[in-house]
Amino acid sequence: MNFDVVDLIRTKRDGGALGDAEIDWVIDAYTRGGVGDEQMAAMAMAIFLRGMSRAEIARWTAAMIASGERMDFSGLSKPTVDKHSTGGVGDKITLPLAPLVAVFDVAVPQLSGRGLGHTGGTLDKLESIPGWRAALSNEELFAQLDDLGAVICAAGSGLAPADKKLYALRDITGTVEAIPLIASSIMSKKIAEGTSALVLDVKVGSGAFMKSREQAEELARTMVDLGNDAGVRTTALLTGMDTPLGLTAGNALEVRESVEVLAGGGPDDVVELTCTLTREMLAAVGKTDVDVEAALADGRAMDIWRRMIAAQDGDPDAPLPVAKHQHMVVAAESGHIARMDAFDVGVSAWRLGAGRARKDDPVQAVAGIELHAKPGDEVSAGQPLMTLHTDTEERIARAVDALDGAVSYADGAPDLPGIVLGRVE
Amino acid sequence: MNFDVVDLIRTKRDGGALGDAEIDWVIDAYTRGGVGDEQMAAMAMAIFLRGMSRAEIARWTAAMIASGERMDFSGLSKPTVDKHSTGGVGDKITLPLAPLVAVFDVAVPQLSGRGLGHTGGTLDKLESIPGWRAALSNEELFAQLDDLGAVICAAGSGLAPADKKLYALRDITGTVEAIPLIASSIMSKKIAEGTSALVLDVKVGSGAFMKSREQAEELARTMVDLGNDAGVRTTALLTGMDTPLGLTAGNALEVRESVEVLAGGGPDDVVELTCTLTREMLAAVGKTDVDVEAALADGRAMDIWRRMIAAQDGDPDAPLPVAKHQHMVVAAESGHIARMDAFDVGVSAWRLGAGRARKDDPVQAVAGIELHAKPGDEVSAGQPLMTLHTDTEERIARAVDALDGAVSYADGAPDLPGIVLGRVE
Repeated sequence: MNFDVVDLIRTKRDGGALGDAEIDWVIDAYTRGGVGDEQMAAMAMAIFLRGMSRAEIARWTAAMIASGERMDFSGLSKPTVDKHSTGGVGDKITLPLAPLVAVFDVAVPQLSGRGLGHTGGTLDKLESIPGWRAALSNEELFAQLDDLGAVICAAGSGLAPADKKLYALRDITGTVEAIPLIASSIMSKKIAEGTSALVLDVKVGSGAFMKSREQAEELARTMVDLGNDAGVRTTALLTGMDTPLGLTAGNALEVRESVEVLAGGGPDDVVELTCTLTREMLAAVGKTDVDVEAALADGRAMDIWRRMIAAQDGDPDAPLPVAKHQHMVVAAESGHIARMDAFDVGVSAWRLGAGRARKDDPVQAVAGIELHAKPGDEVSAGQPLMTLHTDTEERIARAVDALDGAVSYADGAPDLPGIVLGRVE
Repeated sequence: MNFDVVDLIRTKRDGGALGDAEIDWVIDAYTRGGVGDEQMAAMAMAIFLRGMSRAEIARWTAAMIASGERMDFSGLSKPTVDKHSTGGVGDKITLPLAPLVAVFDVAVPQLSGRGLGHTGGTLDKLESIPGWRAALSNEELFAQLDDLGAVICAAGSGLAPADKKLYALRDITGTVEAIPLIASSIMSKKIAEGTSALVLDVKVGSGAFMKSREQAEELARTMVDLGNDAGVRTTALLTGMDTPLGLTAGNALEVRESVEVLAGGGPDDVVELTCTLTREMLAAVGKTDVDVEAALADGRAMDIWRRMIAAQDGDPDAPLPVAKHQHMVVAAESGHIARMDAFDVGVSAWRLGAGRARKDDPVQAVAGIELHAKPGDEVSAGQPLMTLHTDTEERIARAVDALDGAVSYADGAPDLPGIVLGRVE
């Protein structure tokens, strides 16, 4: 069946719904080049502003899956379960989480990406470990999953190539933050990846794509339905992203903090979210009576982490790189910290060199921000609040600018929400 | 000043207004290639769905004018006045109008375009005259204007090149019918063309871009303001396009009808609209006491027409080409014709070969539709209603399909509106 792409754009532009055959055709034609980037950009903007029905999103997702290969982990002796975060500032949870879940005899195929904009990427973080290699062959991936129960590696280019092309287009055309497009992009990759269960960590707040609880719930609901309809047991947690997670934002800094968690320490919020997500993932494959905290305390998770790093040519004992320049930011007032804006901290870390503006830009392993206090803590004016790290001294001034207004103070202790705000199943 | 185009797209996407420097930058960068087609397509769709303020439209128009050259007719001894129609079915008015206005010692620089979709283009019509040449050098254009007072020729590529590039993009991305984009496209070309006065013929109805009176008034108001703000004395007539104009739609067929009007005959609606627009144009340059009808009746307009055609290498005495195939469509019922849908007739003529789907497609000079009756006429079932003309017999079936439901009948004489529906100044 052949369609005129201009007719389809006009249908969506005028608020109509695209039919199954129309969606299959437009995704296929775009992947093959018969529909041009300028036409898909107009379509993406029309979808952004007009939305999509649940049936359209499901078909759009299915068509993107059909554009490439699907992996199949059914030959493994263990059930597979994966986690996906919609992205935030200081979100290093995948690093301690994957080895921790693997302790309980399940397989965690964590196919990950790189960061864009103010949010970091899991692969960028791990690449600050000397020697560590993101790209694995399918054979290496299966062997490591079978042996260790966890892999964090780059998603192969064969999964949902339509999404890869469309994501790059959305990035340069201002069409990233639409729920139908975000949900279909994430879920096409995750369903194609072949996991049997999936837990979504949908971030809510200033540092997340979804600024409001309502938007985040809609995105979570959309993705949970897409996953379950496609046979992947899917649940979602809504978690806070008004404040950076933990005490670090930046690649090597976040690896250091993750290792602290695996060693039984680390910041409370990172430990709590890691353990909560681990329980959610284990429950999704029927394991409910588990002592997750014990596996951190007794070194079982750390053991798997070290073997994971070594299996991908990294040296778990090598010192992490350290930035040439540090700059201290101090508290402007005395009192309790009421707010420390995740978006501003993310932009500041990005400007220091931790993130990229375009997908082929390099990132600095060493760049980022270390926090010395967080919302709820009491500070005195002039006391150290953050240390900025970078190899490029001239980046510091604009990074400091980004923090203007990022922190606010209160006389009494503020009433802060917990890290987990809700659950969608 | 440099901007990030993604930021500008997001501003418009979220319903904000673009500033002057932002508009200047995006139009300039798009013309030079620094902003890509996919980015401008997303911007065009955001403008389509979010609109633009009056200030934004004015600046967008000015930026498109600034992308190229401006013509200057101030060296002519006569005032210049131009007419632009937003496009309809059977709209051949420019052909009798230009020589008729020129009778009254004004200069009519009618820089025209080709047709796209179901509406015809003035140059396509004139090219059915053997030998006639659309492209003139600037020297030829000025000499002919000085000598005869009227020129119909192709707009040079130097006028508003940003609009040329954007128009081609809008055509393939479903972003044609937005009032800010239509108004700025038309007015950037007309202001750059350097006319001192302009009359707009804004079509309303099924065969026009603007289907409703309200939309047409908004488009007319937008363009009239843009013209007057730029120092071009501009008025607009709203005219009906629910029914084709005159009794022909198609290139050579419309030339034949235009020559009938210049010979003092022709269909009433074509004569009325030609004379009304002529009076409006002459009034715009201060000539109000004129007997327009006399200049048709006594052959003065015909004389200028013949000299115009000859000056562009056409033979005004050569027979016009005739189609190899004719197909008669008859009245399905007896009664008064209540409606004859302009859009359906336009699509049917297009399918016969009179129009093009893409801008480099050829058109058939001979193709089109001749009407034997119009709304208000009384017919008997089986009586000839239309003759379809084409050189390509296999096109007839789909052209007949396009007419399905195009004509409706009533028992009594229908109450029909006049051709001129309103005026905006």
